[in-house]
Amino acid sequence: MLCSIAENKLSYDLLQSKLEHDPNINQALANYAMFGGMEPFKKGIANMLEKYVFHCAANTVNTQHLCVGAGTTALLEGIFFALCDQGDSVIIPSPMYPAFVTDARVRAGVKVIPASLTDTAAAAEGKVAFKINVEELERAYQKGKDEGSPVKAVVLCSPNNPTGTVFSSDELNEVIAFCRKHNIHLISDEIYALSIFGEKPFVSVYELLDGKLGNDIHIVSGFSKDFCLNGYRAGYIYTQNAQLLRYLYKEYVFFQCSNPVQSVLANILNDDAFLGNFIQENQKRLKSHYALTLQLLKEQNIPYIDSDSGMYLLLDVRQLLKEQTFDAELPVWCELFKQSKVLVNSGKSTLGDVPGLFRFIFCHKEPQLRIAIQRLGKAYNNILATTSKSV
Amino acid sequence: MLCSIAENKLSYDLLQSKLEHDPNINQALANYAMFGGMEPFKKGIANMLEKYVFHCAANTVNTQHLCVGAGTTALLEGIFFALCDQGDSVIIPSPMYPAFVTDARVRAGVKVIPASLTDTAAAAEGKVAFKINVEELERAYQKGKDEGSPVKAVVLCSPNNPTGTVFSSDELNEVIAFCRKHNIHLISDEIYALSIFGEKPFVSVYELLDGKLGNDIHIVSGFSKDFCLNGYRAGYIYTQNAQLLRYLYKEYVFFQCSNPVQSVLANILNDDAFLGNFIQENQKRLKSHYALTLQLLKEQNIPYIDSDSGMYLLLDVRQLLKEQTFDAELPVWCELFKQSKVLVNSGKSTLGDVPGLFRFIFCHKEPQLRIAIQRLGKAYNNILATTSKSV
Repeated sequence: MLCSIAENKLSYDLLQSKLEHDPNINQALANYAMFGGMEPFKKGIANMLEKYVFHCAANTVNTQHLCVGAGTTALLEGIFFALCDQGDSVIIPSPMYPAFVTDARVRAGVKVIPASLTDTAAAAEGKVAFKINVEELERAYQKGKDEGSPVKAVVLCSPNNPTGTVFSSDELNEVIAFCRKHNIHLISDEIYALSIFGEKPFVSVYELLDGKLGNDIHIVSGFSKDFCLNGYRAGYIYTQNAQLLRYLYKEYVFFQCSNPVQSVLANILNDDAFLGNFIQENQKRLKSHYALTLQLLKEQNIPYIDSDSGMYLLLDVRQLLKEQTFDAELPVWCELFKQSKVLVNSGKSTLGDVPGLFRFIFCHKEPQLRIAIQRLGKAYNNILATTSKSV
Repeated sequence: MLCSIAENKLSYDLLQSKLEHDPNINQALANYAMFGGMEPFKKGIANMLEKYVFHCAANTVNTQHLCVGAGTTALLEGIFFALCDQGDSVIIPSPMYPAFVTDARVRAGVKVIPASLTDTAAAAEGKVAFKINVEELERAYQKGKDEGSPVKAVVLCSPNNPTGTVFSSDELNEVIAFCRKHNIHLISDEIYALSIFGEKPFVSVYELLDGKLGNDIHIVSGFSKDFCLNGYRAGYIYTQNAQLLRYLYKEYVFFQCSNPVQSVLANILNDDAFLGNFIQENQKRLKSHYALTLQLLKEQNIPYIDSDSGMYLLLDVRQLLKEQTFDAELPVWCELFKQSKVLVNSGKSTLGDVPGLFRFIFCHKEPQLRIAIQRLGKAYNNILATTSKSV
C-alpha cells in the first residue's frame, strides 16, 4: 500500500458532478488561450483566494497578478528559472517535501540548503516540535555564501509538508524580516492552505501583509491538494512583481495549463455555494479522518507527532532505531516496509535533522486506512520487540 | 484578424461529441498517473501511429517507447535539456517555425542555427521551392563548430512548417546520413503528419527506417495540429533510446499531461471507426479549403508558394519590396497589416533567406477566410500600385 503519496482520496464524490460534466466545453477551448491563464479561471481563483485564503474583500485580488500553469511543480521550476541563475541556492526549512530538491536541481540547476525547523526548546525536553528558527535560516544563508552559491530565495511550505505545522503570524514575520534583511525573495508555497484540521488558524502572507507583498514575496499554490486533483495539473503563482510576471508569461509556453482543465475548475471556483460547501465538507472529513488516524495509531501503540494540516502526520519510530542516526534509520524503514507492505516516506528523504520520523499519508478511505495502520502496527511492534531483545 | 496562429478551426464539430463527454472520467484521473503517460492513452497513440503515421502492423509500436507530455513545446524543451548542454546548438532547416528559437533558448540555453531549405536550382529560374540541402546542413554544422557551440542535433519539422513542404524519402535519407556522419541526433518533428492535402505522400522516419530508429533518431509530435486541439496541451515523444527515455521520465514532473486530457484523447484514439473517419474527413476539409484559398488568392492576384501540408501557405509579396532584403520586408509587413488588419507571419521571423514570404493560416471557417483574403487583396494591390508608381 502506498501511504507515501500526498493524495487526498476522501472528497472526490463532492466534486464528481462538476468534473464529469463541464457545461462550458466549446471550440474556444481547443484553440490557444491567453498566456498566463483564461480570465474565467483567474477570476475563479481570485474569488476563492479572497473568500477562503487571503480573507480580503471581494474584487481585491487583481487577476493580472496571477499566472496559472500545469501544476505547482512546473510553476515552482518556472520561478526558480526566473529568480535564480544556475548554481544559485534557495533555503528551504526542513523536514521538507523531498521533491523540492530535484525540482530545483534537475533543470534549473538550483541548490537547496535546508534550514532546520526543529524546536530546540522542545527537543531539550525530549519532544519533537517544529518552528521557524531564524538562527538556522542565517546559518543556511552563510552556508550558501561560503560555498559560492548565493541564496536567492526562501521557499516556505506553509502550511508545512511533511510536518503538518501551521506557522504563526510571528513566525511568518520572522521569515519575511530575514528575507528583507538579506534582500532575497520569499516564495510562499501555500498549496495546503485549505487542508487545515487542527486548532491553529492558517495565515497567508497576503493576509499578514494586508495584500502589500511588494516585489519580493510571491505565493505559489494549486489544486492538487486542497481540491484533491493531483492528476489534473493546475496551479498558479500570485505575485505583484511586474518583471517576474513578464518573465513567467515568457516561460508560459513550457507550463501551459490545459484549457478544459481551466474551464472545469473555473466552473467550480465561480460557483460560490458549491465552493463553500466543498471546502467546509472536505475540512470536516480531514478533521474526522485525522482523529480516526490518531485513534488507530494509539490502538497499535505507534507513536506519532501531532499535525495540524495537510493529509499526513509523522510517525515517530525513534524507538526502533539502534542509534539515533540516519544510517540506523534506513534498515528500520526497509524492515517496516518489508513486514507491513505499507510504504511511508523516510525521514532522511525530507532532509530533517531528527532520524526516525516517517511521513504517513492518512487520506485513504477508511477500510484501507484501517488495514494500513493495522499492518504498520504489527510490523512496528514486531520490530520493537526484536530491538528491545537485542539491546 | 489573426491569420498568424497555426490553428485548424475546420473540424471541431467532428470531435465535439467525444470532447464534451468522456465516459471514462473517474477518481483515478484525480490521482497521480504513471510517469510518461497513462497506458490507455499510450496504447491509443500507438494504435494511431501504426495505422495512419508509421504504416506498420498492429501492435508493432511498443508503448514503452512513448513518453507523453503537456504539448510538443514542453516536450521539445525536455529533449533539448536531455541532449544538449547550455551553449550547444541544434540545426533547424529554414524557413522555420519561429518559436523553435525561443523554445530552445529561453531556459535550455540552446542556440538554433538555421540551414536554408531554398531550392537553388529553382531559384536560378526565379522560382521559390524548398528542399533538403546537405551543403547547407554542413555549413551550419561548421558554423556551430567555429563559434564554439557544438551541434548536438538536427530538428527537422516534417511535414514542414511554415513552407508546407513534404520531404521525399531521398531527402529524409540525406538528413539521416548527415546526422550519422557527424554522430548527432535527429529530432523529427512530425506534428503535421496527418495534415496532408497535396499529392506528395508523407513518410515518417519510422516508416523509412522500417522501425529501426536506433539511439539517435527521435520523433516528437502532438495533438495540437492534426487533431485541432492546441488548447488541450498533449503531445508525445517516440524514441528507442533507453537512456533518453530514463531522462525524460525524470523530467516528466515538469511537463505532465493532464489526466482528463489523456483520458479524452484515449477515448478518441482507441475508437477505430471514429478515428478513421475523423482523419479522413479532416484531410478532405483541408484539401478543399486549400483549393478554395488558392482560388481566392488568384481572384485577388496575390502570388503564393504552393503548399502540400499543414494549415498554411506562404504568400509571395516580393513584388512589394523596394529591394529584396529583410530590411525592406519589415515596412511592407507593417503596411499590409495596417491596411488589411489581417496579421500574417513575416518572412524574417522564420529565419529564411528569401525576404517577402509571409505565412498565411487558411484554416478559418469559410466566411472569415473570404474576408481575410479580400482584405489582404485590397491592401496588397493598393501597396503594389504605390510601389509601382514610386519605381
